[in-house]
Amino acid sequence: MITTVIGLGLIGGSAAIDLRKRDFTNKIIGVDNDKINAQTALNIGFVDEISDLEQSVKKADLIIIAIPVDAAIKILPKVLSIIDKQIVVDMCSTKSTLLDAVKNHKNRGRYVASHPMAGTEFSGPWAAISGMFDSKAAILCDTEDSDKDAIKLIKKMYDILNMRVINMNSTNHDIHTAYVSHISHISSFALALTVLDKEKNEKHIFDLASGGFDSTVRLAKSSADMWIPIFNQNKENITTVLDNYINKLQKFRDSISNSKTDNVRSMIQEANKIKRVLYK
Amino acid sequence: MITTVIGLGLIGGSAAIDLRKRDFTNKIIGVDNDKINAQTALNIGFVDEISDLEQSVKKADLIIIAIPVDAAIKILPKVLSIIDKQIVVDMCSTKSTLLDAVKNHKNRGRYVASHPMAGTEFSGPWAAISGMFDSKAAILCDTEDSDKDAIKLIKKMYDILNMRVINMNSTNHDIHTAYVSHISHISSFALALTVLDKEKNEKHIFDLASGGFDSTVRLAKSSADMWIPIFNQNKENITTVLDNYINKLQKFRDSISNSKTDNVRSMIQEANKIKRVLYK
Repeated sequence: MITTVIGLGLIGGSAAIDLRKRDFTNKIIGVDNDKINAQTALNIGFVDEISDLEQSVKKADLIIIAIPVDAAIKILPKVLSIIDKQIVVDMCSTKSTLLDAVKNHKNRGRYVASHPMAGTEFSGPWAAISGMFDSKAAILCDTEDSDKDAIKLIKKMYDILNMRVINMNSTNHDIHTAYVSHISHISSFALALTVLDKEKNEKHIFDLASGGFDSTVRLAKSSADMWIPIFNQNKENITTVLDNYINKLQKFRDSISNSKTDNVRSMIQEANKIKRVLYK
Repeated sequence: MITTVIGLGLIGGSAAIDLRKRDFTNKIIGVDNDKINAQTALNIGFVDEISDLEQSVKKADLIIIAIPVDAAIKILPKVLSIIDKQIVVDMCSTKSTLLDAVKNHKNRGRYVASHPMAGTEFSGPWAAISGMFDSKAAILCDTEDSDKDAIKLIKKMYDILNMRVINMNSTNHDIHTAYVSHISHISSFALALTVLDKEKNEKHIFDLASGGFDSTVRLAKSSADMWIPIFNQNKENITTVLDNYINKLQKFRDSISNSKTDNVRSMIQEANKIKRVLYK
């Protein structure tokens, strides 16, 4: 099987590495607007050749779209117009607007909307690693609109990547990911800003930061190019989640400020219930 | 040398394990109000015997206080009244109120105020581990009020624990830790609450949570018993930090909601500068 990967960064690159290593595909064609990314992907060797969009789509059996969601909204309809019977999957973090963009496309059935919930705070082809998807969840959205053979192949692909496949409609997907993914990033960005604002002498942060701080702000290293389109596409859900989050923080702030220890205790004990789901 | 450890939880236990393993002390006496903790510490073997406060302090050369800061405020003056020439150190996360509690004590010079910036989200003697302090920072506060031989021993102790020793006055300590430690915990508690509130069906969180969410809410597993006293003792600084943090979140929220992409981009790029200090 020949696979074309559009977008040779962290996600596309990590998928390419393991899909070949694990014999899912025997040839990978890469597409990337950024020439340095394209050349790096070739150098590292997770693609066999670089081609333009049209040629690479025509030659492939499977096309994986792994670019920021704002670019995917433009590229996906083009790809669907080029294909004959090929299968197309995207790996973007928001789904509703992307699905809206192709809902009446004649080749909609050949496309599977997916979101592998994996990543690191790094980006670009240099950040691509083997095993990044292992043991994580891959969400397939609105599968009733995709052809059965297309769903079957994408499920097999995520199986090869050692992921748990979960079906969800795109509206619910965008709500849930606002809570368990998008908010974590905004929380980290804001925390990093708060500390950097205060600590003009960065030596103090370096001296004092312990493991707890590290893990809470790790996501603040994430790239604007990836996250701005996600925040744009999912802004209604994200705004709601941020309002809830700010409200909880305000309750903590007021309870601490007014020495309402019982309130603080019950909030912490309630928060501790996260152990039920995150037991590591 | 005989060492008494008051408080046989994560901090006291982890210190005991490595101080003996690395030949800093050859006998460790444990003190803990909680009989299960005391027996567990004996069973695990990081203390040689359990004793009461007075006897254990009298027998020791060094007394380590590793209990929540509200309890330490009561215990520290008692310990200083029992000692003759022994050296006393505490390992609490806030310093100003604790130092105020003993500032006129006749044995103030025998006491060194310290804060090893290390820990995990777990607690109790079962959570004590070897190596927990390695490569982290240990802060010594207001050392000009401690005897030179006391400072020398405590520096040696933290050296044996593989920590970087940093001197700081207690007021600055409490401000800086509000930014780089206390706020991370409140941010995590509030994030866990926000998600748990929304996701009454916890299965969704479990299904969808990826590495980013895990690391951001990890600290939400931390214990109320440890953190409530810290929040109480440092409430002025924490309130200020939370106000700044909420303000940053509100800016993110408004910029996302109003599609002010340039604002979001410049905030993310500013936050990315955390890479300068957290390069791992």
